[in-house]
Order: sequence, then C-alpha cells, then structure tokens
Amino acid sequence: MQTFDIYYRLTLFGDENIDRKIEKLCREQSVEMPLGVVPDQIRNKVVGQLAFKEQITDNVYDIAVRWPLENVGGEISTFLNMLYGNISMKPGIRVTGLDWDKLKEILFQGPAFGIDLIRDRYGIEDRALSSTALKPLGSSSEKLGKLCYDFARGGIDIIKDDHGLTDQSYAPFEERIRACVQAIGKAADDTGRRSYYYPHITALAEDAVMRYEKAAELGADGVIICPHITGVEIMHQMAGMEVDLPIIAHPSFSGALTTNEHSGLSPDFLYGELWRALGADFVIYPNVEGRFIFSEEECLAINESARTAGLPFRSSFPMPGGGLQLADVDKWIETYGKDTAFLMGGSLYEHPKGITAASRELMRKIIQIG
Amino acid sequence: MQTFDIYYRLTLFGDENIDRKIEKLCREQSVEMPLGVVPDQIRNKVVGQLAFKEQITDNVYDIAVRWPLENVGGEISTFLNMLYGNISMKPGIRVTGLDWDKLKEILFQGPAFGIDLIRDRYGIEDRALSSTALKPLGSSSEKLGKLCYDFARGGIDIIKDDHGLTDQSYAPFEERIRACVQAIGKAADDTGRRSYYYPHITALAEDAVMRYEKAAELGADGVIICPHITGVEIMHQMAGMEVDLPIIAHPSFSGALTTNEHSGLSPDFLYGELWRALGADFVIYPNVEGRFIFSEEECLAINESARTAGLPFRSSFPMPGGGLQLADVDKWIETYGKDTAFLMGGSLYEHPKGITAASRELMRKIIQIG
Repeated sequence: MQTFDIYYRLTLFGDENIDRKIEKLCREQSVEMPLGVVPDQIRNKVVGQLAFKEQITDNVYDIAVRWPLENVGGEISTFLNMLYGNISMKPGIRVTGLDWDKLKEILFQGPAFGIDLIRDRYGIEDRALSSTALKPLGSSSEKLGKLCYDFARGGIDIIKDDHGLTDQSYAPFEERIRACVQAIGKAADDTGRRSYYYPHITALAEDAVMRYEKAAELGADGVIICPHITGVEIMHQMAGMEVDLPIIAHPSFSGALTTNEHSGLSPDFLYGELWRALGADFVIYPNVEGRFIFSEEECLAINESARTAGLPFRSSFPMPGGGLQLADVDKWIETYGKDTAFLMGGSLYEHPKGITAASRELMRKIIQIG
Repeated sequence: MQTFDIYYRLTLFGDENIDRKIEKLCREQSVEMPLGVVPDQIRNKVVGQLAFKEQITDNVYDIAVRWPLENVGGEISTFLNMLYGNISMKPGIRVTGLDWDKLKEILFQGPAFGIDLIRDRYGIEDRALSSTALKPLGSSSEKLGKLCYDFARGGIDIIKDDHGLTDQSYAPFEERIRACVQAIGKAADDTGRRSYYYPHITALAEDAVMRYEKAAELGADGVIICPHITGVEIMHQMAGMEVDLPIIAHPSFSGALTTNEHSGLSPDFLYGELWRALGADFVIYPNVEGRFIFSEEECLAINESARTAGLPFRSSFPMPGGGLQLADVDKWIETYGKDTAFLMGGSLYEHPKGITAASRELMRKIIQIG
C-alpha cells in the first residue's frame, strides 16, 4: 500500500491525552466514526497510523501520521479535505509539513516558472527583484496607467495591481490592463529597459481562468491571484495551462489559517510549501515589522520552504510585503538573500520626490547590493 | 452613493488604540495605503466610514463600518476580499454580521429551496428532519448501497455521503450514486415511504458543477458540498443553476475561520448568514457536546441566523452533527425546535440492534415529538 506522511504540531488543552488526541485525528480524517464499528480490513486500509511522535514541551508534541495515498484519490480537493477538513474545527492541531515526493506524481506539478525561469525570462541574474502595487482602489484606469508608467520609468521590475482592484466601475478589468500594458511599453521606449505588469485576476473560478487567458491576450506579463478566494485549486489549474504567464499568489482571506499558533497551517507550510506545490511562481506574505504579525523567524521559514531544493518542484520567489520600508531594503536583502522579490507600496507612494524617484532609489539600492 | 454596513467585534491587544484600529481597518480593506497619499475625492469615495461603536469590555468593542457598494463591484469574489481579505492576517478582528438587503440586489440570491420548499417537496410538515451519513471511507459502492438501503428501510429522511467520499477507487463517484439511488428505490418499494439520497460532489470548481449535473441525471435527490474546498462561490453558482437538487453545505476546511474567538467570522455569520446567502439549503455545523467545540449559545445563534426572517433570503435548515447521540434527540428537538435537520452518524452505526432498528428508533422519537 502506498502512503505519505503529514506532520502536525499538537497542543493539549485541559486534561487531553496525547495518544487519544492522535487516535481521534487519525479517525476524524478518514473513517469519521467510532473504531468499534469499522471493519478490520477497512481500518487497516484507510485509517492513518502514527509514524513519529516527539514531545516538545509539557503540552506540545510534534507528530507524523502515515496516510494511504488512495484516500486522496487523484484530486486536490480530496487531498485538502484529508489535510485539514474536519480537524479544522478542532483546537490544538496545526499542520506543519508533508511528504511531497509521494504526492507529486499524482497531484502536484509546482510552478511553471519559478525562480530560475523568471530570472532567465527577465534577464535578471544576480540581484533581488523589486515589485510594487498600483493603487488606490477608486482610481481610474488612466490614473493607474500613469502610475504604472511612473514606476516603470523608475525601473521597478514587477508592477502588479493592488489585489483590491478587480472589475469595479472605477477601473474595469480590460480597460485597466490596456492602460497599464501601454504604459509599460511607453516607459520601455523611453528608458530602454522593460518592467513587467501583473494584473489582478481573482474572480469566480471559471471567470478567473478566463481573465488569466485575457491578461495574456492583452499583453500582460503575469498575473496576481488570491487563491483562498477563488479556491486554491484554480491556481493549480492555471499553472498547468498553456498560458505563458507567471503567477503571483496573494494571501487575502487566508490569514485565519496561519495566524493562530495552535491551529491552522503553519505559514511556511501554507505560503512556502502548499502554494509552491499548487504552482505559485511568487508567494506574497506579510513581512515582519510591517502592518501584520508574523515574526522574522516565521518569515525566514516561509522563504526557506518556498526555495528549498528539498521539495520536488521548481522554487518560488518569496515576495515579502505589507509595510516594507524603502529605508530598510538593505537590511532585508541581507537578511533574506537575493532570491527574494521585495514588494513595496506605501513607502514609494509617500516618497517626497515622487514615485519615479522613489523607484530609482529602490533600484539603486538593490543593484548596489547586487 | 450606495453603501452597506459590515459589523465587527474588535479586541485590542497590548497598547492598541480603538480609534486607530478602526482607521487601519477602514484603510486596509479599501485603499490599502497611508491616507496622507490618498487624494481626497478617492478617500471620500472608497474608504470605509465608522457607522457605530459600542464598548463591550475594557478591550472589546462592537463596531459597524459603512462601505461603498461599488467597492465590491458585481462579484462575490471581490466582496469576499472586502469582507475579510487582508484583515484576515490581523489579530483581534472578527466579522459578526452585515446588511444583506443592500447586497441581495447585486450579489446574492439565497437558497433555491430552503425550509419551506424542502418541506413541500418531501411532504414533511410538522416535525424535525433526520439525516445520516454513508461511511466509512474505504467501503465499496455495493457496501454503501447496502447501508443506504438499511437506513432507508428505517425511514431516515436524508441519507448523504460522508464528505470523505469523493471519487476514490474504493467507491467511484458514478458507481456509488447508482448503487445508492437503486437502494433508495428498493427501500421505497419495500416500505412505501421514500428516503432521499445526497451524494458528495466536492471537486475542482468546474468538476463540482459537472458532478452536480451528473447527480441529478443519475437520480440523486440533492447534493452535499464543502464550499471552503471548492471555493464558496461555486455553491452560489450551483444554487442559481437549472439543476433541481437542494444543496447541503459541509464545514470541512472552514474551522480556522470560525473557531478562534478573537478573529475570523463568527459561526452564526459564516454558517448561518453567509452560507445561506450563498444558497445552502442545509447548513451542517458541529453541535455542542459532540466531537467539536462550539458552545450551545453559538449553535443556537447559527440556527437563528439560518432561519430568521430578518434576512432577505429563503431560510436554510440548520443541520447540527458531529457526534449527536440517539439518546439525546428529544432534548435537541426541544432546544433547537422542529425546523432542524438532525445529522446522526456514529450513534446509529453503534446501535446494538443494527442500522435499520436504530433508524426506526430515531424516527419514532422525531415523529412522537412531532
């Protein structure tokens, strides 16, 4: 029987017993009924088995459970249910990792591009990447196109839509893409150097797929999507399509999964591993010292998971954002390394000399450290 | 300018200031940049405005924020981002309700059937409904068909697939439906009374839609879906289709959103209101005293939200499950009322006299109280 392991951190509350908690987990995520009424041959065939257990503190354990591969069939949706279905409603269970090698064959392909092919594609060899967001919501397509031009003239590598921009009347999807694609071209003509525009395509599943195709048709260079709004499988579907555009994944709506330390999925597992397996070329996460709450240790762990050769997929570019300051970029390149795409918004918009000057300053820093 | 209100419970941590927290929320979920660089006309047009504030305890506040309707465009995906996008990564923000009247026109239709039409359809007037799950995973279609027959002979109203059953080789989707539909027919011939079979259709978005159609074609009576795996909009899409099958929503993968008291969405908001708006005819939630952690107060609030006439949609049947005991059904009917569909699994499987006798006992209790 083929199997794969999932790793969990378990926290005991009150008078919980660790062995009983593990047994319940193995049951809840498979037969979902009292073991007394499960026939032996089914019990042996489908119920998870403890493969590893280590006590971390008085009430915290790290464990691995071995699951039959056939329980997930050939579907990512079934895998998600097995990974964190009913146990999402139980306290003290956090998924921290899994055996990707076994799942690669049947479910996951990873990024279509990843760090190496993105570097080839954009001719950026030995330095960090810069990126920014077009905003605010409420701006016209013309205004967003103008911002795009200003950033591109300053040399920002990747200019993406803010994830709040979809198809509102302020700046409808196609009109906005046309304006920004044109702005990118004009700036390239002016400067001799090309920036790359990634529109936001989140929508109902099939509409998101159509926007992915439409973005390519209109000359965009990549896309940004919120997988926890479309359903995460949609990103995987896109990564496997013929459409030749890299994908940035945005964590909107995902925070409840990662920000409670005793439950959910660890941030390095979700943003680093699962999103990478599902085909994200870039993974946006909220950086420490910004507007959100991850620690530097958690951010470093996300970077490591997104890039490590230990996973059987192309690596993803970590894309820290959410309050990154222009003044701190040297520190962050030193801390996170060059295989990072730094996402900077507010701090460029607030620059006293304007967006183009701010972008040039950012690029000078990045290239100097280069 | 048309607007709608969202209600939040805010919890302050450390030295947080309530007014600053509210201002950040209003900004994070709209312009997502420092207000100093947002032009006035955009600020007035798209940034949320505080509409209500009440202090509950030293560090807890209930507030309402008024949002421009145009921010959500005409798309549920955009609405979800506005509802709980970036703030999902911030601690101490819990969504507890919203103004459905304004959103009904442009986004939501609610259940296609709901309590009244389900009662008409099944000719069940003045009593609670019973339901159960076919399991365990690993059983053959033949075995599941036999279980379905045994439950149907005992008179259970709704017999659904366990949500762990999808299209694994143990009991492939179509084969399983055929076996169970046949079993339902045979039991109806034997007893003169019909039960209703709801197969599980969770899959990648478009595949789930295809399974919804296929279930109808094969003679199923309804379906069960995990909206937080397919993407919640898929359920809404189905509820608006011509397919004439009621929908049960299952909370798999949703627990991280509802089980942490200071963040996420309140369970009555998610399972009672949002799922209802999105078209769930039945909403499964984990009952108090079972294997999960909601309090009786939270369960009563879910029931109330699912049924209340205060929402501009047909009402949804609350479907408490997750460890409901046959011995307690009288108490739960008294506590929750008759407009409830009780979901009972393990306790019927464990009955010493077998599944059919257990089902008959459950139905006797329900009809007696009737």
